[in-house]
This record gives sequence, C-alpha cells and structure tokens, in this order.
Amino acid sequence: MILGQNQYGKAENRVVRVVRDGATHHIKDLSVSVSLSGDMEDVHLSGSNANVLTTDTTKNTVFAFAKEHGIASAEQFGIHLARHFVTSQESIRSARIRIEEYAWERIGVPGPQQHSFVRTNQETRTAQITFDGGAWQIVSGLKDLVVLNSTDSEFHGYVKDRYTTLPETRDRVLATQVHARWRHAWTGDAAPEPPGDWDRSYRQAREHLLAAFAGTYSLSLQQTLYQMGSRVIDHCPGIDEIRLSLPNKHHFLADLTPFGLKNDNEVYYAADRPYGLIEATILRDGAEPGIPVDMTNL
Amino acid sequence: MILGQNQYGKAENRVVRVVRDGATHHIKDLSVSVSLSGDMEDVHLSGSNANVLTTDTTKNTVFAFAKEHGIASAEQFGIHLARHFVTSQESIRSARIRIEEYAWERIGVPGPQQHSFVRTNQETRTAQITFDGGAWQIVSGLKDLVVLNSTDSEFHGYVKDRYTTLPETRDRVLATQVHARWRHAWTGDAAPEPPGDWDRSYRQAREHLLAAFAGTYSLSLQQTLYQMGSRVIDHCPGIDEIRLSLPNKHHFLADLTPFGLKNDNEVYYAADRPYGLIEATILRDGAEPGIPVDMTNL
Amino acid sequence: MILGQNQYGKAENRVVRVVRDGATHHIKDLSVSVSLSGDMEDVHLSGSNANVLTTDTTKNTVFAFAKEHGIASAEQFGIHLARHFVTSQESIRSARIRIEEYAWERIGVPGPQQHSFVRTNQETRTAQITFDGGAWQIVSGLKDLVVLNSTDSEFHGYVKDRYTTLPETRDRVLATQVHARWRHAWTGDAAPEPPGDWDRSYRQAREHLLAAFAGTYSLSLQQTLYQMGSRVIDHCPGIDEIRLSLPNKHHFLADLTPFGLKNDNEVYYAADRPYGLIEATILRDGAEPGIPVDMTNL
Amino acid sequence: MILGQNQYGKAENRVVRVVRDGATHHIKDLSVSVSLSGDMEDVHLSGSNANVLTTDTTKNTVFAFAKEHGIASAEQFGIHLARHFVTSQESIRSARIRIEEYAWERIGVPGPQQHSFVRTNQETRTAQITFDGGAWQIVSGLKDLVVLNSTDSEFHGYVKDRYTTLPETRDRVLATQVHARWRHAWTGDAAPEPPGDWDRSYRQAREHLLAAFAGTYSLSLQQTLYQMGSRVIDHCPGIDEIRLSLPNKHHFLADLTPFGLKNDNEVYYAADRPYGLIEATILRDGAEPGIPVDMTNL
Repeated sequence: MILGQNQYGKAENRVVRVVRDGATHHIKDLSVSVSLSGDMEDVHLSGSNANVLTTDTTKNTVFAFAKEHGIASAEQFGIHLARHFVTSQESIRSARIRIEEYAWERIGVPGPQQHSFVRTNQETRTAQITFDGGAWQIVSGLKDLVVLNSTDSEFHGYVKDRYTTLPETRDRVLATQVHARWRHAWTGDAAPEPPGDWDRSYRQAREHLLAAFAGTYSLSLQQTLYQMGSRVIDHCPGIDEIRLSLPNKHHFLADLTPFGLKNDNEVYYAADRPYGLIEATILRDGAEPGIPVDMTNL
Repeated sequence: MILGQNQYGKAENRVVRVVRDGATHHIKDLSVSVSLSGDMEDVHLSGSNANVLTTDTTKNTVFAFAKEHGIASAEQFGIHLARHFVTSQESIRSARIRIEEYAWERIGVPGPQQHSFVRTNQETRTAQITFDGGAWQIVSGLKDLVVLNSTDSEFHGYVKDRYTTLPETRDRVLATQVHARWRHAWTGDAAPEPPGDWDRSYRQAREHLLAAFAGTYSLSLQQTLYQMGSRVIDHCPGIDEIRLSLPNKHHFLADLTPFGLKNDNEVYYAADRPYGLIEATILRDGAEPGIPVDMTNL
Repeated sequence: MILGQNQYGKAENRVVRVVRDGATHHIKDLSVSVSLSGDMEDVHLSGSNANVLTTDTTKNTVFAFAKEHGIASAEQFGIHLARHFVTSQESIRSARIRIEEYAWERIGVPGPQQHSFVRTNQETRTAQITFDGGAWQIVSGLKDLVVLNSTDSEFHGYVKDRYTTLPETRDRVLATQVHARWRHAWTGDAAPEPPGDWDRSYRQAREHLLAAFAGTYSLSLQQTLYQMGSRVIDHCPGIDEIRLSLPNKHHFLADLTPFGLKNDNEVYYAADRPYGLIEATILRDGAEPGIPVDMTNL
Repeated sequence: MILGQNQYGKAENRVVRVVRDGATHHIKDLSVSVSLSGDMEDVHLSGSNANVLTTDTTKNTVFAFAKEHGIASAEQFGIHLARHFVTSQESIRSARIRIEEYAWERIGVPGPQQHSFVRTNQETRTAQITFDGGAWQIVSGLKDLVVLNSTDSEFHGYVKDRYTTLPETRDRVLATQVHARWRHAWTGDAAPEPPGDWDRSYRQAREHLLAAFAGTYSLSLQQTLYQMGSRVIDHCPGIDEIRLSLPNKHHFLADLTPFGLKNDNEVYYAADRPYGLIEATILRDGAEPGIPVDMTNL
C-alpha cells in the first residue's frame, strides 16, 4: 500500500478587511482556502500529529495576516500566506492558497462619509497561489460571468450520424457562463519580486474576454472560446496560459406555430439541462501547460 | 373532509424576449410562474379534468404572450397573463402570476452592432400580479441585494437575561441581504388602467432602499429596516405597503489578541449561520395589510 | 405611517444533541429558527433596544435548553423554547419556533460500541410551534421526499383552448417532491399537556402519505394530492388540517422515432424547469384553516 | 499560440430507464455527461464544424442507447457510450463519460403491483469511463455520504506556532461528508471483457468505507481517511487506487458555562464554514496514480 498525493488545510475562511482612509472606507471580501503538503506519512499511518500544523492554525493565520500584511490583492495575500507556511514549518513542503473575491461598489451618499457598499455579484474573481519553496505558480481567474449575444451566431456544417436530429441554423442566441483561469508567467526564478498590479491585470484580462465574446461573429462556441483565450494571450504579456470552461446556455426558439404566430428570433426558452460544455486551453508559444483539465470551484 | 385553498399552474417558465431596433437589440429575461384557482373540486375528488386548463397550456400561453403582447415590464406582462386566464376560462376564478426578472447590461463595442450583454446579477427583481376578475393586487420587489455599512452602527441597551452573553458595541459592521416586497395602491377600482411606468417605479423604490440603508446611523437593524421601509412609503405615493426581510449577515471582529495584534475594527469574519432575521411591514396610514408574513422565493 | 406585523430572532441554529446510554449513543440533529413578536415599536422607531431580547440570546437559549430539557422531539423542544420566551419576557407576546430535523441511522458494527451514524437524507422533517401566551399551534411536516410511480397514471379530458398542444396520455410516469405540513388539533385549551408521541405521529403521517401516493391510480396529480391529504386526516385523529405542495417532476418520454426505435414507456427525460405545481389544503370537517397558502422553507 | 487540451460534449443528460418485469418495475436514474476529444483544431481556429459530432447528437445517443443497450449499471452504460463515440467517428480520439446515479427504493404496497418508488438520497453514486481507442480507465465513486462518530476521536500532539490557539481534546465528535473515487485495475489490455458485477463492486467498496470509518479509533482525520482507503484496497482486488476528499464537518462543543451548565459532550454546534479539508490518494503497491488531485462534481 502506498500513500499517494495528499494535502490538508482549512477551506473557505471568510475574511473581510476594512481600511479606513479618514471618513472613506475601503473593503476587501475574500474566501480563503489553504492546502498544505509535506512530510505527512505519520499522521496518515499512525495518527501522530507531530508534523501537523492544524487546520485551525491555518485559519488563524489567515485572519492575523489580514491585519499584519493587509490585503493589497487576492494574489498578493496568497503569496504572503504560501511563503509563510512553507518557510516557517519544516514539515510543510508545499502550500496552495485558493481565494474567491467578492466585489463591492460604493452606495453614493452626500457628504464626506463613504462607508456604505453594495455587492456587485456580477462574477466571482478567483486566485490560486502555489509555492513549493522554490518556484511559484499564480493562476488568476473568474467564474459565473454570464454573457449573451442575441445574434451573429451560426451553427451548421457538422457531422450527421444516425443519431443526429439538430437542424442547422444561421442565426441563434449564443450565451454562456464564463469560467476562466489564466496562469501568469512569473515563477520567481528570474525576478524574485512578483509583477506589479494584480488588480489591473485582472481588469485587463476580464475586459479582453468580454470584448472577444462580443466582437466575434461565431460559427461555433469553440471558435468563440478560442478568440476569447487567444485575445488574452495576445494582449497580456504576463499571461502564458488560459483555460476556459464554457457551458452553452441554450436559448431555444419557442415554437409558436401551433398558435398561428411567427417567431422571428424574438421569443426564446432558456433551458437548464442538459447543456453543451466546451473546454479548452490556449498557450503562448513555448509555454508548458500547468492548469489542470478539471477546474474545481474550490 | 373539506377541500380548502388550492391552486395549480406551471412554475418557472424561463422566457427571454429579444426586441430588434435595427442593429440595437434589447432583451427581457424572466422566470414566470402561474397559479390558477377556481372550480377545482372535481379534479381533486374524482380526477376529472373537465375544468382544468393544463399547466402545459399555461406554459404555452406565457411564450405566446411574449410574442403577442411583448414584455413592457414584468408587472405589465403579468397583468396580461392574469387577465387572460380569468376572463377566458369560466372555471378559473383567480390567477396569480409571479415573476423574477434578471437584469442585463450592454457590453460596449465599437460600431452600430449592439447585441451583446452581460448579466448584472446584483439583485433579482420580483413581481406578483393577482386578479380575481374584479380587483388587482400588484406587489413588486427585489431580493438578494447585499449591502454593508462598515461603521455608524451601534448595538447596546438591550435586555439581559440568564442566557445573555453578547457584549455591547459602539461600532460594528452592519450588513444584510435585502428581500423587499411593496404593494401598489392601484387595484383597478378607481382607475381601470394601471399606472404608467413600472420600471421607473422599481428604480425609485430601489434607490430609496439603498439611500436609507446608507444614510441611517443605526442603533439596531430594526431601526434601519423601518427607515428603509418608511422612506419608500414617504417618497413613492403609489405604494401603500412594504415588507422587508433582513437577515443580519454577521461580521464578527476576529480575535487577534492571542497573536499580540490589535484589531481596530479592521479584520472581520463573515459568518453564515446562524443569523439574525429581522422582518416587518410598514403601511401608509389607512392602508390594510395585504402582503403575507412569509414571503417565499417563488 | 404604521408599523405592521414584525418579528425577529436567530435563524438556523444548528444544534446536535448526543445522549450516551452506556456504549450506545443517540443523536438529534436540528436547525432551530426563533421568531419573536411583541412590544417592538420603540426599537423600530427610535432604535431603543430596551424591550429587545437579542437574537444572540435566543441562540444561547437554544443550546442551553438542549442541555437543560434535552430534545425528546422537535415539537417538544419547540414547545419548551416558545413557552420560555413568552413567559419570561414581558415585551415578548408571541413566539414562533421553526425546526428542521435531519435523520441519522446507525452504521452497524460488531461489539457493544454503537456511536457511528450515517445521515439518511431521504427527507427533511419540519416542525413549527407557535405560542401567544394562550393558545398553541403545532404544525409538523416534511419536505424533499421524492416519489415516483412508473405507471397507473393517466392524463386526459382537460380543457383545450387556443394555446393547448399537450397530447392526452393513458400511461405516464408520475413523480413529485412532497412538501407537506399538517396542523395538530391540540391547542392547549382543553388539555394543557401536549399529546404523547410526536415521533410516532410523524412516522404515521409519513407512512400514510407514501401509501396513498403508491396506492392511487391517478387521473391527475390533484387527485393524488387529495388522496394523500385525506388519508392523513382519515387515519390520524390528532391532525385537523394538511397542506401539500407537489411539484410535478415531469418525466417526458424520449422521442426515439428518428432513430428507428420504439419507446414503449421505457426511456424518459427527467426535466427540471418549468414544472407543474399543485397545491391544496385538506381540512377535517369543522376545522378552520390555519396553515398559510405559502409554505416557506424556513 | 497553441491550442492545448480541449474537449466538448453534452453535460447532465437526465435519463430514467424503466424495465417492466410483469407487474414489477425496475428503474435506473442517471445524469450522464459526455466529453469528446480529437481532431478539433479546425473548429477552434476557423469555426468549421466538419469534424464535430454535435453535443445535441451526443445527447440523442444517450437516450437511444438507454433503449438499445439498457442500463445494466452506470459503468457498463458508460462503456457502451465511450466505445461508440471513439469507434464510430474518425475525428473522435477519446471519450470520457461521467455519470451520477440516484438510488430509489420500493414503496411496499400489498398485491402484485410494484411500480412505486421513493428516492433514497443518501449518497450519489458516480462513475467515470474513459476510452482512447486502446485502453480503458474506469473510476467509480460516491459523494455526499455524511457520517459521524460521536466518540472515539482524539486530537492532540500537533505543532504549536505563534498562531495556534486550538486546545487539545481527548474526546470529540468526528463527522465528514465522504467524497471518494476508486480506479479499477481493468484496462482492457489483458482481458477484453470488463469484469462482472459493477453494482456488487460498488456495494462492497461503500460497505468497507463505512466499516472503516465506524471501526477506527481516530487520532486524526488523516488516520481515519487512510484506514478507509486502505481497507478498500485490501478487500477489493479489482481496485488499484482510491482518492478521498473528506471535509471535517466541525461539531464544536457549545460553551454552556456562562449559564452555570456543564456540557459533558452532549450539546454541539454544527458549523458550516470554514472547515478542515483532508484529501489523499492510496495506491496498491506498484500502481501508478491515475485519479487527479482535484475531483470535480461533474
């Protein structure tokens, strides 16, 4: 019997950090999940916890670091945490920090008091920071960004076999819920300090994903996916790889002919299940793939 | 044995309506639930469906009406549907239409083509239209609008009994997920035509809820709730009643003292359960309550 | 402006009670939600908490009572809590306790040690206890019990209007997710002590619901619903009223004719949305309805 | 720019198969997700669908195969589907079928009619079948099986650092929600026919997981995890690898001391978040790991 890959930690620590700049407040709202790996044979085989930094301690560290280091960005916060776990405990060889970030915007009020916020909810930002004592891997991303084109999408020319019944179409609604992860080129080898502005990098990648979705005349969701991913690689030199998982949120034309009505691409039924699921990785020339095929939510 | 209140229909019809104004498209995205009541003794007692308009037909009607009448607003669409069911079938005495509306905003692209959208997800708009052949009841609302004040909230002076351990506080985070429903004064009696602009009315009520939440220096969530509700009644003459259900999304100050750190209202733990739940109705003088104590999601 | 119905309390207190009978353990696993009403004008209008027993204290009371009174049943535990809040605080006029109970069964192991359990998950048991200082109302129930008959269900003879397309059927799958609440006759007026065995009463009602669902040759889901409800009223003398909410979990026959295959009621597509929703109350002769039309989950 | 790993298909096809053995019916209830890979450069780069078997066709195939081949087991059904896609389309090089199975049990009724069922809901069974035209990989599993030991769990002797506050304990509740996947040794190389009874194999693995959980006196959740996994490897010769993901569903002792009450391991608070998350793979000697670190739900 062999103990294979193993990891442990505290998941979904919900930390909210308030910064008071006079009467103007700022907030960061994260869910932080810690996974540690290392010399953990004993705890699995005999139950000895002598090498185990408890998951409760990893939770405490998240909250303490929110005070000690602040939360400049999800990525920077994860770098602080991963470095700490790997460098402070001999038995910990590798740390993976996963973060979800929930965005807020100000509720505008008269006067200098600015401490009221409303959650935007549009998408969830994600970050995964992995450190093994030598190299870093930083994967940023987003999920649950729902987009729709009401035209400029065709679908035809596909294989027909015994089980094919789908009619071809020259004008359909194309909608999807974007789940994307992109891996940054930075690993710490050449440049010990991480590149500058993670929030700006996030906004740029997000803008390119939206622009490519909106700007592509689509012959298939695969084509749209490739346009989205390759545009990010093209425009963001710090990003070497991106993986997209795009459920085809089917909008079927409602059949109104039994009622003597013509449906000129006006009335759609938004279906839940089943749904097409299109997934692919796009890499910069020369880059090695580092994002797993399956991207979990946590 | 007596058959009491009963109703039936098709729930969660997901209809999306596209309107093409040249190269500029507009969309409405609804989930429509139909409930019908009437002479339904037979179907319960003997299984005779002679008085039953099937739930499948009510679904078809939703999609056909999206073509025939368009979707000017959730409320107006519900009025069309409720009137149809009650006036076209003798056995149907009353219809209740519940609608959720999901908002989209444009993805800006260069050029005249404007048919790309991203879901906002901030809150879900709701509408309930009830018609019994005589009077109308229109209840609009929203849910899942998450708001937070990072200061200007105190909590003290409460009852202490044997089971009280909560320390008083002069500065806390106040956060909630707003679930609100408001009943319009219009019933069709005095004015056969419904009042004008339901979308404008929605935006106004929403703005007043946010402004009252942000603008209230709070001594209790009940006080904030009352300010939110009464501000809507004050500023929206067409609204006679509002009910708010406000979960207290607790943000507990993280205890950093074991680590030798001071937490000066900077680092919070956002808790899930349990949560305070504060609910109340505010009525215009002279109005009779019409919104039930329990507000379901559907 | 008038303050209408209002209530507050701590929702979803997750309390687990272990009883050790030697090496044999027993557990009760509840989610308890407290709602209190009373003299609460001040806290809404001025923010004065002088009449407010905090929601945190109601949470503490739930956990303390699990020790002091034990949890004989969800209903009995709710009676203890409701009586306490109404009788111990002058400002509290009424208390409503809502409980969800999660069932566990033993994992059989050799030897006398019996402290291992696996959650059954089949349905969630519910109880709502309301007390205003005088009368009691006890409503028990269940939700998420999913049942299916693979035959003995027909559907035909219904109204056909312009929007009807559904073909009649003489053999279909009938499936639903039972959400039921039943009100006990006991109010404390005639008999101060509540009736005996709430767990036994629950098992009986549940068994009758299942037996009626399985034993009814169905011409409509309404007929099945009525058989289920009336069987409970018939066989359970302590129950005066029952309300059922039955989503029609549609199982559509897959169309295999394009593939040259015959589908003799063998292959079905289980649809999510939209779904028929059939709801009704059945009352014992002479009973007044007490269960609201809308049954929320909480 | 390089197109990396890519796959597509229809996800969550909800197929229910009824088999009529006279008056006794049997049902299988699956959610089937298809993922295909192969020569898909063109559709990504130019939008040409000439190599694309549509996701709609893969859906049709699922329903047609439920008729043509029946559903002997989730694994066997997935083998039929994967073989078909890879061998019938030149452009498809690999197929991965993921299946969730929902269990039903009979509602006992008098007489020969046996066609009534109630969903058990205890856990969801999973299966993943992968075929590349040469070798097979079959991974079976389960998720959402919730188990609890009310004693025989200790936790102490762990690392203490600056952020450690957790007190050691000699008696705690240990509860988790089991997510397990196990890889079968069969790949088709030595024996072209898959091994016999997948349902029996599933029941055995499940029983060993439960027995090991219940029978282990636990000094850490890692130790319990290892006992669960190694027992499966020990007792199931057809299984070469198992991966377990075990959230520590914390049950914290309620602090009743402020109320003058002693809590002798009787009253617990069941927490939601954060939670410990313990994950590991156990392999038969000589086996190569084949189950990814991250196990998604789909």
